[in-house]
Amino acid sequence: MIPARVIEAKRDGEALDPSVLGDFLDAYLRGEVPDYQMAAFLMAAYLKGLNDDETEVFVRCMLESGSTLDLSHLPGPRVDKHSTGGVGDKVSLVLAPLAAATGVFVPMISGRGLGHTGGTLDKLEAIPGFQTDLSLARFKRILEDVGCAIIGQTTEIAPLDRRLYALRDVTGTVSAVPLIAASIMSKKLAEGLDGLLLDVKVGSGAFIPEEERAAGLAEQMVTIGRGRGLATVALLTAMDRPLGRFVGVGLETAEAIHCLRGDGPPDLTELVLVQAAEMVRLGDHSVPIEAARGRAEAALASGAALEKFLRLVEAQGGDPRVVEEPEQLLTAPEKAEVRAPEGAVVLEVRPRPLGEGVIALGGGRLLMHQPIDPLVGFEIHVTPGDVVSRGETLGIVYARDPEGARVGAAALTSAVRLGQAGDPVVRRDLVSRRIDGGGV
Amino acid sequence: MIPARVIEAKRDGEALDPSVLGDFLDAYLRGEVPDYQMAAFLMAAYLKGLNDDETEVFVRCMLESGSTLDLSHLPGPRVDKHSTGGVGDKVSLVLAPLAAATGVFVPMISGRGLGHTGGTLDKLEAIPGFQTDLSLARFKRILEDVGCAIIGQTTEIAPLDRRLYALRDVTGTVSAVPLIAASIMSKKLAEGLDGLLLDVKVGSGAFIPEEERAAGLAEQMVTIGRGRGLATVALLTAMDRPLGRFVGVGLETAEAIHCLRGDGPPDLTELVLVQAAEMVRLGDHSVPIEAARGRAEAALASGAALEKFLRLVEAQGGDPRVVEEPEQLLTAPEKAEVRAPEGAVVLEVRPRPLGEGVIALGGGRLLMHQPIDPLVGFEIHVTPGDVVSRGETLGIVYARDPEGARVGAAALTSAVRLGQAGDPVVRRDLVSRRIDGGGV
Repeated sequence: MIPARVIEAKRDGEALDPSVLGDFLDAYLRGEVPDYQMAAFLMAAYLKGLNDDETEVFVRCMLESGSTLDLSHLPGPRVDKHSTGGVGDKVSLVLAPLAAATGVFVPMISGRGLGHTGGTLDKLEAIPGFQTDLSLARFKRILEDVGCAIIGQTTEIAPLDRRLYALRDVTGTVSAVPLIAASIMSKKLAEGLDGLLLDVKVGSGAFIPEEERAAGLAEQMVTIGRGRGLATVALLTAMDRPLGRFVGVGLETAEAIHCLRGDGPPDLTELVLVQAAEMVRLGDHSVPIEAARGRAEAALASGAALEKFLRLVEAQGGDPRVVEEPEQLLTAPEKAEVRAPEGAVVLEVRPRPLGEGVIALGGGRLLMHQPIDPLVGFEIHVTPGDVVSRGETLGIVYARDPEGARVGAAALTSAVRLGQAGDPVVRRDLVSRRIDGGGV
Repeated sequence: MIPARVIEAKRDGEALDPSVLGDFLDAYLRGEVPDYQMAAFLMAAYLKGLNDDETEVFVRCMLESGSTLDLSHLPGPRVDKHSTGGVGDKVSLVLAPLAAATGVFVPMISGRGLGHTGGTLDKLEAIPGFQTDLSLARFKRILEDVGCAIIGQTTEIAPLDRRLYALRDVTGTVSAVPLIAASIMSKKLAEGLDGLLLDVKVGSGAFIPEEERAAGLAEQMVTIGRGRGLATVALLTAMDRPLGRFVGVGLETAEAIHCLRGDGPPDLTELVLVQAAEMVRLGDHSVPIEAARGRAEAALASGAALEKFLRLVEAQGGDPRVVEEPEQLLTAPEKAEVRAPEGAVVLEVRPRPLGEGVIALGGGRLLMHQPIDPLVGFEIHVTPGDVVSRGETLGIVYARDPEGARVGAAALTSAVRLGQAGDPVVRRDLVSRRIDGGGV
């Protein structure tokens, strides 16, 4: 294996022999192929593509570069969910305890927010004391006791993916579909799962906005999962608007708690129930879809899901009083209302200006390890298709100070696009496609 | 300028703002953009191309990264020649003293052989004592005294090009036409020339074998030269067969000396005279082409060119007895003849097997700084279109030992493709195109 020849072959669009590509990746892991050769290879792969066999080599090398969890001792199926990330996406906070309440074990290894989307770990850490950097041993104990546990990436899992991601992040090669698929699936395959649900966001606020490319990513991930015996289902879900009413780290946590109490916004509640039903079926393929949905609805309505969340918060060191009183997460020092300047129809609520607005308010980050303010963000009062009258509140900015309130109001104003009756409204179906590869 | 954004823009095929690209290259030179970001950029540029404005930014930044020679005190025009490299291409050894003998000053900064083509410096160093790593001050003195001087790349000229070339060499991005054009032209523009002749090789033994791509490179270099006020002419010349009869470092030096004495092979002599005439005209545009050719022929026939070469050898520390007795360069310990197995027509004499054969014999290199054996190589007795009878000598291998003779004979046998009368013969015109951009 001569590294320059591997790069040239990919540059010229050739399919690589799996053993040669494997040697190349292993040599990179050992430090024998330098970053600059890998960067050139990744750009060639971005522009010329990777076929399924090549992508599988990436998955295998990433997976084998680290540890794999053995959770076979758990007395029930292990099913996780992964979202490609969106604005207002607090599904995991509700879904993990809800699925656990139905009897599924949820070993969730999650990420932080970067760029315009928030991260599950940041949202959980808005709860005072909540710890996400637990050892794998403690993670397993909480999983056994509670039924779900949520921690951050550890250095033990897929270290090759970590190194490649850091390199891709600074070389313009993040958004290559096969590389995204391999990165996600290598980490999830390390979790020792029986089933995996993938929430692939589509629309202007998604990392891959276009339906067909997003579907391609979903299909590739389902193929990888099936090829390794992991039951995998992907849903394409709407990210042409924020999910739920709140955007911002602590604000979303509060909304998730409300959802667990049964008074969440309709779109969030529906998406959580759809996904929980899928997870029930991924854990036990014999359960009909209506019965799976019924179990999820019951676990939410009975308070069992809320109870699981409370136990999760306690087990991971968080202050349980926040679960009783989520309003303490809605106490930003400055608030500003944005009102409709005239009677209008809401044509679009654009996620990106809101996600970028949260960063401007100090509640997101552009670089890893930046601290974030959990109290800032947006409360959106309208959804595409709504008719508003003059002076009606479109949304509220939660800010640290008056300057933040001003910046936030501008972001909110640019996010809510108004028009007249008859103008086209941007509103995708909440779930537009389901891909199961014929497996589940 | 955010490096990742520059990479992404090129990845997406966008034309870069010249000032942004300039900042990117300058930041790389200062060490603020690491090799891995530049490697990703170069691969994107390889696959998406660079337009003329972007290429000009590369030329400018490479040129401005180092020193520029000031040769304006010389009492005559300064004209250099650059060849893209071929098998058996010993033109520079004859042309530099020949052009100098016509009154043109030739400040030649040349390269070493790498891969299947030989390098002018290696050929000159086959003359015992000949030094090519001179200071620029000594280079200028010899140029003043003799009219020509030939040295290697110095660290003072275009250091950005040196760094980029080293990176391209290991990342599969050498053969991008705009990058080749910028690399060559930045170094030649630093020589303080009045005129530049480019010998762009075409055919299976050239780095760019295809006529149209080679013509594109020639046109791009002529455009760069004209844009900076340097009179530039490019010739596309045949590299579907070796040039002259000898291939190998010292063997080619001997052949060049024979050519300077007036008994060179017809193709080499003709190409040298064509190029010398172009150099005369690049130095003085008012000379008609026939008169320029006449001056070159006279300088060769009178012995003035040979005299210049002798003075060049002496000035650069070489043993002048080699010029008197070039046969001492043809004294390899082992020789082996390769003969025609039957009566046939020579359909092709392929340059690459010969160039690679020289490497196998120890007379070339695959990595920089490898030592090379000046006495090994090939003497080719046939040219495409020749009719040979059974047992007739096709060529002679010059080797270090019997094993080398065996390996060389196999290479020579595979290089000379034989066929029957009526079969198509591979033989390009010696000079197939002349490109002057309307300038000369």
